[in-house]
Amino acid sequence: MATRAKLSLAIFLFFLLALISNLALGKLKETEVEEDPELVTCKHQCQQQRQYTESDKRTCLQQCDSMKQEREKQVEEETREKEEEHQEQHEEEEDENPYVFEEDKDFSTRVETEGGSIRVLKKFTEKSKLLQGIENFRLAILEARAHTFVSPRHFDSEVVLFNIKGRAVLGLVRESETEKITLEPGDMIHIPAGTPLYIVNRDENEKLLLAMLHIPVSTPGKFEEFFGPGGRDPESVLSAFSWNVLQAALQTPKGKLERLFNQQNEGSIFKISRERVRALAPTKKSSWWPFGGESKAQFNIFSKRPTFSNGYGRLTEVGPDDEKSWLQRLNLMLTFTNITQRSMSTIHYNSHATKIALVMDGRGHLQISCPHMSSRSDSKHDKSSPSYHRISADLKPGMVFVVPPGHPFVTIASNKENLLIICFEVNVRDNKKFTFAGKDNIVSSLDNVAKELAFNYPSEMVNGVSERKESLFFPFELPSEERGRRAVA
Amino acid sequence: MATRAKLSLAIFLFFLLALISNLALGKLKETEVEEDPELVTCKHQCQQQRQYTESDKRTCLQQCDSMKQEREKQVEEETREKEEEHQEQHEEEEDENPYVFEEDKDFSTRVETEGGSIRVLKKFTEKSKLLQGIENFRLAILEARAHTFVSPRHFDSEVVLFNIKGRAVLGLVRESETEKITLEPGDMIHIPAGTPLYIVNRDENEKLLLAMLHIPVSTPGKFEEFFGPGGRDPESVLSAFSWNVLQAALQTPKGKLERLFNQQNEGSIFKISRERVRALAPTKKSSWWPFGGESKAQFNIFSKRPTFSNGYGRLTEVGPDDEKSWLQRLNLMLTFTNITQRSMSTIHYNSHATKIALVMDGRGHLQISCPHMSSRSDSKHDKSSPSYHRISADLKPGMVFVVPPGHPFVTIASNKENLLIICFEVNVRDNKKFTFAGKDNIVSSLDNVAKELAFNYPSEMVNGVSERKESLFFPFELPSEERGRRAVA
Amino acid sequence: MATRAKLSLAIFLFFLLALISNLALGKLKETEVEEDPELVTCKHQCQQQRQYTESDKRTCLQQCDSMKQEREKQVEEETREKEEEHQEQHEEEEDENPYVFEEDKDFSTRVETEGGSIRVLKKFTEKSKLLQGIENFRLAILEARAHTFVSPRHFDSEVVLFNIKGRAVLGLVRESETEKITLEPGDMIHIPAGTPLYIVNRDENEKLLLAMLHIPVSTPGKFEEFFGPGGRDPESVLSAFSWNVLQAALQTPKGKLERLFNQQNEGSIFKISRERVRALAPTKKSSWWPFGGESKAQFNIFSKRPTFSNGYGRLTEVGPDDEKSWLQRLNLMLTFTNITQRSMSTIHYNSHATKIALVMDGRGHLQISCPHMSSRSDSKHDKSSPSYHRISADLKPGMVFVVPPGHPFVTIASNKENLLIICFEVNVRDNKKFTFAGKDNIVSSLDNVAKELAFNYPSEMVNGVSERKESLFFPFELPSEERGRRAVA
Repeated sequence: MATRAKLSLAIFLFFLLALISNLALGKLKETEVEEDPELVTCKHQCQQQRQYTESDKRTCLQQCDSMKQEREKQVEEETREKEEEHQEQHEEEEDENPYVFEEDKDFSTRVETEGGSIRVLKKFTEKSKLLQGIENFRLAILEARAHTFVSPRHFDSEVVLFNIKGRAVLGLVRESETEKITLEPGDMIHIPAGTPLYIVNRDENEKLLLAMLHIPVSTPGKFEEFFGPGGRDPESVLSAFSWNVLQAALQTPKGKLERLFNQQNEGSIFKISRERVRALAPTKKSSWWPFGGESKAQFNIFSKRPTFSNGYGRLTEVGPDDEKSWLQRLNLMLTFTNITQRSMSTIHYNSHATKIALVMDGRGHLQISCPHMSSRSDSKHDKSSPSYHRISADLKPGMVFVVPPGHPFVTIASNKENLLIICFEVNVRDNKKFTFAGKDNIVSSLDNVAKELAFNYPSEMVNGVSERKESLFFPFELPSEERGRRAVA
Repeated sequence: MATRAKLSLAIFLFFLLALISNLALGKLKETEVEEDPELVTCKHQCQQQRQYTESDKRTCLQQCDSMKQEREKQVEEETREKEEEHQEQHEEEEDENPYVFEEDKDFSTRVETEGGSIRVLKKFTEKSKLLQGIENFRLAILEARAHTFVSPRHFDSEVVLFNIKGRAVLGLVRESETEKITLEPGDMIHIPAGTPLYIVNRDENEKLLLAMLHIPVSTPGKFEEFFGPGGRDPESVLSAFSWNVLQAALQTPKGKLERLFNQQNEGSIFKISRERVRALAPTKKSSWWPFGGESKAQFNIFSKRPTFSNGYGRLTEVGPDDEKSWLQRLNLMLTFTNITQRSMSTIHYNSHATKIALVMDGRGHLQISCPHMSSRSDSKHDKSSPSYHRISADLKPGMVFVVPPGHPFVTIASNKENLLIICFEVNVRDNKKFTFAGKDNIVSSLDNVAKELAFNYPSEMVNGVSERKESLFFPFELPSEERGRRAVA
Repeated sequence: MATRAKLSLAIFLFFLLALISNLALGKLKETEVEEDPELVTCKHQCQQQRQYTESDKRTCLQQCDSMKQEREKQVEEETREKEEEHQEQHEEEEDENPYVFEEDKDFSTRVETEGGSIRVLKKFTEKSKLLQGIENFRLAILEARAHTFVSPRHFDSEVVLFNIKGRAVLGLVRESETEKITLEPGDMIHIPAGTPLYIVNRDENEKLLLAMLHIPVSTPGKFEEFFGPGGRDPESVLSAFSWNVLQAALQTPKGKLERLFNQQNEGSIFKISRERVRALAPTKKSSWWPFGGESKAQFNIFSKRPTFSNGYGRLTEVGPDDEKSWLQRLNLMLTFTNITQRSMSTIHYNSHATKIALVMDGRGHLQISCPHMSSRSDSKHDKSSPSYHRISADLKPGMVFVVPPGHPFVTIASNKENLLIICFEVNVRDNKKFTFAGKDNIVSSLDNVAKELAFNYPSEMVNGVSERKESLFFPFELPSEERGRRAVA
């Protein structure tokens, strides 16, 4: 029977190759069901078996048929699965939403304990190759229940930490002592790679919610946690060293070390008592109860004067020009957008920056205009101009979306709630905003002749369209001529 | 028949694994045709069927044979395809000309209308993995007929625009107005990513030819065009937004918007009237007809004083040290080489820069010396030194070639025409030129002992070879001893 | 029989898909051996064949069985190979030692002649994807026998050259002459990309050993050698140009050129006479015999004052802040560690830098603590904290190891010899050292409450562990309580 195997190999290879050239595959499949010589042969042989009784023959013929059916089913199934697979690939290539990340689907849980969790957004390039430019950024969300302790660790990544909700104490190990920093919502701080840190949720009732942007310094797009102090859970990094090494380094007998590294078993986020929380408060400066140590977060975006504000929304930016040198070195900007309910941002794009946006609060809607992400691009002749398709998503707290440079987009608050979005804008050097509606938009800034040529339409008519005095934020309402017909976006 | 499938699975997996270890595959294939027990069995069974007539038996035996042949054919075919596939891979690895790009073969047409075209050079890494270092540069050529309008768009890339031929007006949207710049041949300008721009060929007769070096800011090696103003062709990016959003943003009823975005249908490059051309001219400064607005291109390389010039050629360089800070930031230099007919550049290489060269005019010849690009490299033992092979190409206008750092090369003008080459030199920081012939070449700069040791030849003899007083450009003629025998390079 | 092929295709595709969804595969395999309808059918058919003699039937039944066994064997084999393959992949993913490079296994020989050899460490990413961050660094070791000449060449890479052992003369071609530099052990020098250089082992007896860190400027992770002057071996880069070009460029008849490029046949490293060695010595300054030209290496690390030193070890650092601007531009630091016999470095990690370490002399032991490199990481739910495993290796001269940032590690000298390690530290900007033992370690710097919480252990007990006054280097000895029981690390 070894030959059978060899022949099967031949067949297998033949089809592997056929598979590679899809054309051949297609051809074979077309004729697949039309005629089936094997079935004919099978039935013929049943008839030929002279020694068969009529009953034998029927059984034999039925076997032929069932074999045939079985195989057809396989072909069908294969075709279906093939198609599904193909569709998946297709989707991957032309993922309708390469820029929108769902809270449940696109995050993975790194840590989950009684006390809280750390969830990490998937690698941007796992979502889409189009996000290659921001491959080395990773977003993580830390959630900690009231009065919990997030145990000491360091990362092989620069960390930009933003306090979304709740009130934290951050402990950072510096040289020979621990610096303690109280954090309030809106506080942002840069933690250099490798710095051991711990976090306390100092609030007795409220959950603590932190966004952490990681910029790995070792392997691009990959960061790890290292628990220095710890035990069995979280496991201490020291547990990897042999006892000899540990004993020699720490000058402590094995028995004592075993006890030390065997105590901690509560996981990396756990509940602590009110007394412990108090004891962890900064003490340096005179202060009121419970935490009065001057906040040392590098800045608080909520308390900063907005860059732009009108009745429909507010934009606050903290960027390289504005403040700390680390923002410049990381080529980063933090922005906070608060869109009033029933209002919208203008249609606009960034020239250089990629926006990594996290919906903090409220509900709303997002639309991005994208050049088709099909295989159109470079290799094929496409005599005309590209076409654009809409990426849209309903926004709710916890969702993340990315807007690449050059791509016009718009965000709209729902009827009932303001929409609050916090953005890490990366590659922000030289960035400018260009708008399509409101004061100083692209169309109104074009000279009249170019306008007429571009639209093939009299410039007075074009001008009629693009005139409105507000900029950046507008009410989301139909033009007066159309009121009453307003539908949901 | 489900078992059959299971068994086939077993067989399939077995061979998949066999396939993985090529050795096993090799072994199996060797014995494949030698003896075929299945054929023997098949024929044996034909004979065994006692109830068969002689005719039945013949048919049966023929079936066995045809089965056998079918399978042999499959094996052959598979082997052939396998070999072809292998050869392809092989060719890919050792592409004889990874550095030369043909005007027809290696460009793809992004836009082609009555008015003109935009062609984009393939991604450098699509040509060869060796070009990975310049992956994020893309070269595009815009050609526009006399009196045409290239409609407004922006790119998600930094653009370095060089006016090769013809006379353009460039409109750049800045803040609240459009800046207009007249371009002449030799003008170069940097357009920051995201800036909306339009282009006019203001010449009544001559074609406009622009080279655009794109440096993508979003996805590495990939850039897109976004038509802000537009209609159906070019399609406006605004077309991707829902009517609600557009109506709310532009405060214009749907009907009016539909009309506006339905007019433009002429494509993205189209013919315009002389009056329109005039109306698009810069008007700021007093000027003569037809365009007198002061040229604001950052510089004109044709009007710059050459860095080096002799009777055989001329080299003009504009680099970071020389002029604008954006050249420094983009780590870029522009050079223009004009080699006199029957002349040549010296054999030389750049220490750091990669040269992306575009033949502007004339004909000539290129030779580059390359370390073998085979799999020689790192994994195998190759006890001796590398060997070098010649990459050569006949040059004509429209061709592009790349010269990586460290690789010695030479360009030669034809007998009848000067050879004009414009180069974007990238990664230019710290770059130096090293030559192998002419004044101060590598060999003549070596001390005599090293020279003798290197060539294993008396240094007087070596010195005899490398002495000539010219540098950079020479006549392309044989040494006096050899005149009359001159052949085509 | 063509149908058969088609059916096989169907089956093959079906299983390919089944394969993709491992679940399905698992299911199929479970039931594989349990019942085999095909065997039943086969045997049934043997019995049915009424015309068969009893002997025929036995043969037939035996064939069924042997077919069955054959297939089972295939399944087994396939399963085994599958497992092996899986294990391999597993190993690849979890390579137990992605950071340790053996002198024989992980280097390839680029050049090997009578006079010496050049060995190049494999690309870091070939060893492990985790090393992607240092992909563009390549380490080479040059070994040259006494009184040899390493013939002139240039590289398409920045080269940082470190003289490990022996005494060299380095010739660098600058503008119109050759600069000569004498090198002593500990000397380090930066050679800009493209600079032609030759090397002389000026010692009559001792071998010369140089480490060269290459930072490619053309294709990332890939560098090439170019022999300008040369002949047949090493082959001159000029050999790739056509005779016409060479004759025209060098103004020398072909015959003479052929002779010139035909002499050198000794390879790229060869023995030279004492007279030649003397003649290659620097001559500029008055000096004693044999070489007195002032050393111009940018610095000598062995003669620098150590950054830290105690009885157990010595650390010398030369970094961006310390000296030459090229270290800053290359973002590089050189360190030299000399650990006294029976001593160890503290357990510590770098915050930003990746250490590429070369064992120069002595023997010892290395341990690194690594977060598990399994597929754990991002996509799966792993409710608890990561676990760490030990990477360990016995060190001997010629071995290379890498320590990524954030990873705690320790090096220990053997009982008999000091351990001498030279390190290229890359990505060194902002780097800090954090220690787990000795003065100012992470644990002792934590405030007491955090310490107690982290270890779940009274802080007095924790403090008892981490108190020792030395820093950086300690004796490698068990705590006094445990002496006498000391085992090999």
